[in-house]
Amino acid sequence: MLNFTFYNPARIIFGDDTELKTGEWTQKYGAKKVLLHYGQSSIKKNGLFDKVVQSLNEKGIAYVELGGVVPNPRWSLVKEGIELVKKEGIDFILAVGGGSVIDSAKAIAAGARYQGDLWDVFMNGGAIVDALPIGVVLTIPAAGSESSSGSVITNEEGWFKRSIGGEVLIPKFAIINPKYHLTLPAYQTACGIADMFAHLLERYFTQVDNVDYTDRLIEASMKSLIHMAPLIVENPDDLNVRKEIAWIGTMAHNGTMSTGRLGDWASHNIEHELSGIYDIAHGAGLTIIFPAWMKYVYKYNPARFEQFARRVFDVDYAYDQQEKTILEGIKRYERFAQSIGLPVRLSDVQIGDDRLKEMAEKCMVGRSSTGQFVKLKEEDVYQIYLLAK
Amino acid sequence: MLNFTFYNPARIIFGDDTELKTGEWTQKYGAKKVLLHYGQSSIKKNGLFDKVVQSLNEKGIAYVELGGVVPNPRWSLVKEGIELVKKEGIDFILAVGGGSVIDSAKAIAAGARYQGDLWDVFMNGGAIVDALPIGVVLTIPAAGSESSSGSVITNEEGWFKRSIGGEVLIPKFAIINPKYHLTLPAYQTACGIADMFAHLLERYFTQVDNVDYTDRLIEASMKSLIHMAPLIVENPDDLNVRKEIAWIGTMAHNGTMSTGRLGDWASHNIEHELSGIYDIAHGAGLTIIFPAWMKYVYKYNPARFEQFARRVFDVDYAYDQQEKTILEGIKRYERFAQSIGLPVRLSDVQIGDDRLKEMAEKCMVGRSSTGQFVKLKEEDVYQIYLLAK
Repeated sequence: MLNFTFYNPARIIFGDDTELKTGEWTQKYGAKKVLLHYGQSSIKKNGLFDKVVQSLNEKGIAYVELGGVVPNPRWSLVKEGIELVKKEGIDFILAVGGGSVIDSAKAIAAGARYQGDLWDVFMNGGAIVDALPIGVVLTIPAAGSESSSGSVITNEEGWFKRSIGGEVLIPKFAIINPKYHLTLPAYQTACGIADMFAHLLERYFTQVDNVDYTDRLIEASMKSLIHMAPLIVENPDDLNVRKEIAWIGTMAHNGTMSTGRLGDWASHNIEHELSGIYDIAHGAGLTIIFPAWMKYVYKYNPARFEQFARRVFDVDYAYDQQEKTILEGIKRYERFAQSIGLPVRLSDVQIGDDRLKEMAEKCMVGRSSTGQFVKLKEEDVYQIYLLAK
Repeated sequence: MLNFTFYNPARIIFGDDTELKTGEWTQKYGAKKVLLHYGQSSIKKNGLFDKVVQSLNEKGIAYVELGGVVPNPRWSLVKEGIELVKKEGIDFILAVGGGSVIDSAKAIAAGARYQGDLWDVFMNGGAIVDALPIGVVLTIPAAGSESSSGSVITNEEGWFKRSIGGEVLIPKFAIINPKYHLTLPAYQTACGIADMFAHLLERYFTQVDNVDYTDRLIEASMKSLIHMAPLIVENPDDLNVRKEIAWIGTMAHNGTMSTGRLGDWASHNIEHELSGIYDIAHGAGLTIIFPAWMKYVYKYNPARFEQFARRVFDVDYAYDQQEKTILEGIKRYERFAQSIGLPVRLSDVQIGDDRLKEMAEKCMVGRSSTGQFVKLKEEDVYQIYLLAK
C-alpha cells in the first residue's frame, strides 16, 4: 500500500426534498451573490430550477444565471463565466446539473481567482490552489464531480480536452435528490453507469501490491452496479434503485477507492480524444476504449485481470486457465455494457479509422506517456484505437 | 434507503514517516499551544513521543503534557484536562494514542468550550456544538475515533459509561503510521479487530430496506478483516497487513458505512455496562455480547441474518435451511473471535451472573430502550446477558 492523504470535506445532502435546502447551505458557506450555472432547459421543465431559486430567495441570496453548458463542457463558456463573475462581484458558484455543469462551475471558480490565462494551467499539469467556493445540486449521477477535486474542459480551439485539480475545487456541499434522475433518458442513465464503472476500473487496475481492502471495496461497488444496471433499464421509475446508483456514483470518485493505490487513467485520456473530436457521450466512449485497453495491457499483470474476471464477473474456469479466464472477464464487461445499450466498438457508433493516428498524436501533447498500469506511448495509444475498431 | 448527510472533513495522513508531519499539520490548523494528551508510557519507549515533540518544536508550537489515559477513559482525567486547558490558555488538543486517548481528548475539547458541567450533556443525549480543534497521532487501530464524531467516557462516580457526539468533535487530522502498531501485544491487536468488526456489525444489522450498496461495502470490510486477522496473529511484524487493518478500522467508523441506514448499537450499550463495571477490554466485551444479541434478535429479520451468514461467512446450506444457516453464521463469528484469542462467553473471562440484573438496570438509566434493529427494554437486555453466560 502506498502512503496517502485522504481528505474529502464535501458535505453530501442526500435524499427526498433535499433540494429545498439549497438556500440554507449556500448561506452557511457565506454566499451573498451566486452564479447559478446550469446546462439545458430540463431543470426549468421539471421544476428543479424554480425550487432552487425559491430556496435562494428565502435566504435573501442574489443570483446571476449562466446556462448553456453542453456535454464535454466548453472553454468558451468557462471564459464567459469568469468574466461574468468578476463583473458582477459573485462570491459563490452554484452548479445545478450533472458532471459537465459541475466541471464548468469548477473551472469558473478557479478562473475567478487566477491571475493570467487559466487554460495555460490546463495544458501544464493543472494544479489549482485557489478558487471561489462551489455548491452543487446534482441532476445526473455519473461523473462523481460533486465531491471530486477535478474538472475536465474541452477547448474548441484545437479540441483539446484537459483537466485541472486541487482540493479547493471539492464542492462545499452536494445536494442529491435522486427523484430528479427518474426522468433521465435510458441512454443517459446507461452512460452515467458506464462512467461510474470506468472510475472504478481506473482505480482497480493498479500495479501497487497489498491493497486487498480497497480491492474489495471497488469490487463491491462494481458488483452493485452490475446488479443495479439491469433493474433500472427494466424499470426507470424505481426510485430505490436510482438512489443506490446515485450513491455509488459519488463513492466511486470521492477518493475513498483510491486510497493507498495508484490508478491508471490512460483509458480516460484515450477516450477524451474520442469525445473531444466526435462529441459522443463520455460514458459511451469509455465502453469502447476500456475493452481495447484491457486486451492491450493484461499481460503486464495477468493475476490482477484474473482477479477482476473471477471476483467481479464470477468467471469460474479451472485455475490453470488464466488467459481464458481473463478474456472471458473482458467479454463479460463488454456484454454488461451492451446489455444497457452501450457501444463497445468504434464501428458501433459509426466512427471510422481515418483519424486514429491524429487522436493518438493529440493524446500525447503535453505528456511523455499516459497511464500508470503501463506507461503508454503514442504508438501504444494508436494500437489501442485499432483494437477498438 | 434513508435520507442522510455525509460529512467527514478529517484529513487522514497515512503511511510511513507521517508522524514527522505532526507539527506541520498542527500549525496549519492554527495551533499555538497544544495539550499533548496520551496514555501510558509506551509512546515514550518506542520513540513516537520524541518524534512528535520534535516536530512541534520545529514549528515553534508550545505544549503541555497530560498523560495517564486508561482504557475505558475516565471522567476524572477529562475534568483535570479541561481545567488545565483553561488555566494554560491551550488552543488545540493533540491526542497521541488509541481510541481511549482520542475520546478523552474530544471530551476535553468539548468541555473547554462548554459553560456548565459537561457530564450533564453525557447523561442527556450528548449533543455537542462547540469544541477546540483536535488532532490525532494514532497508535492503536480499533475504535475509529480518529475520524468519528463521538466520544465515550466512563464516570467513576457510579461507573456510568456514556457518550457525546457532534461534527465539531471530528479531528482536523489523523496521522496513521502503522509501524507503531507492530509492537502491540497480540491480545490488544485482537481486541482492536473485534472492535472494528463490531462497528461494522452495528451498521449491518438494520431494518432499513434498499441498502444493497452499503451492505456490500460493509460485507467487503468484514471479509477483509476475516482475511487479515489470522495473518497478523501468525505474523505480528507484517507491516503490509497492519496497514490494511488500520485503514479498515478508520473506514469502519468514519460514517461511510452508515449512509442511508439506521445502525443498531444496542450491543455497544450492553457491552458498555460490562466493561464499565468489570473493566475488561471493550473488544473482548463485544465478542461476548454480540453472539448473545444475535441469538436474541435474529427472528425479527431472519433474511438479514441469513445474508450475513451466506455472504460474510460463506455458509452454504440449502436455501430451505434458513435457521440452520443463521445459527451457523453466528457460530462462525464466534469461531472467528476465538481464533484470534478472544472470549465469547462471560464464563470465558470469569464473570459470574451475580450482577447481570444490576447491569441491565444501569443500561436503561436515561433511556427508554436501546437499539434500533429491535428496541430492547431492560428485561430484553437481561435476557441477552443470560444468553452470554
